[in-house]
Amino acid sequence: MTEKAIYGDTNPVPGAGDVKRFGSVIGLSPQMEQHYRELHANAWESVTRRLTESYIRNYSIYITELAGKKYLFSYFEYTGSDFEADMQAMADDPETQRWWRETRPCQIQLPNCAPGANWTEMECLFYLP
Amino acid sequence: MTEKAIYGDTNPVPGAGDVKRFGSVIGLSPQMEQHYRELHANAWESVTRRLTESYIRNYSIYITELAGKKYLFSYFEYTGSDFEADMQAMADDPETQRWWRETRPCQIQLPNCAPGANWTEMECLFYLP
Repeated sequence: MTEKAIYGDTNPVPGAGDVKRFGSVIGLSPQMEQHYRELHANAWESVTRRLTESYIRNYSIYITELAGKKYLFSYFEYTGSDFEADMQAMADDPETQRWWRETRPCQIQLPNCAPGANWTEMECLFYLP
Repeated sequence: MTEKAIYGDTNPVPGAGDVKRFGSVIGLSPQMEQHYRELHANAWESVTRRLTESYIRNYSIYITELAGKKYLFSYFEYTGSDFEADMQAMADDPETQRWWRETRPCQIQLPNCAPGANWTEMECLFYLP
């Protein structure tokens, strides 16, 4: 059972404001952890440039273990004005596709992932600038 | 088994740079979810002011469900120069203590939480400005 969202001064309605913030989660294959770490410690310049061109800013990925399983958590900010088009430009980019062929076998999609998505977007319940 | 950290251009050594970023996780009691949401949609001004005075910026809390359990994820940036002292100032603040008496019964500490800590800090493996 999911409780209803509650919005207020310190939990603005999503989409309000200039910057959109995204928190997401996905599983990590323990066999692939080292490869995932290596890839992300020195991510390809072609891929980080494409992220920047798609207005992705202040992008962190964290790792943790919960109940014996590994998970990745990401936080980033989107500063553009057409999120769908900017994400599509990434999906159409051959270098990003090549990157995803390396990273996706490391990841384990979660059952509550949206159709067509890879990471599961989380709901925000608090924000303080 | 935990793989070793790998640092590089897109995963700087922690502590390098001016701003320190923190990603953390904690369990959420499903019975207390609504109360936690209510508190955080309109967090007390005394508490958000104390956070700001302790140089906590760009602070988001997300909620998700993983393998049938509720979790909270937080991301914030610390822009001060004495993290321990700034956290202690929060811990010593009567209003923050009153807030924690409301929020802590909602949270479920995880086994890999550091001694004396409440949230479990996650390790960063990627950062793109």
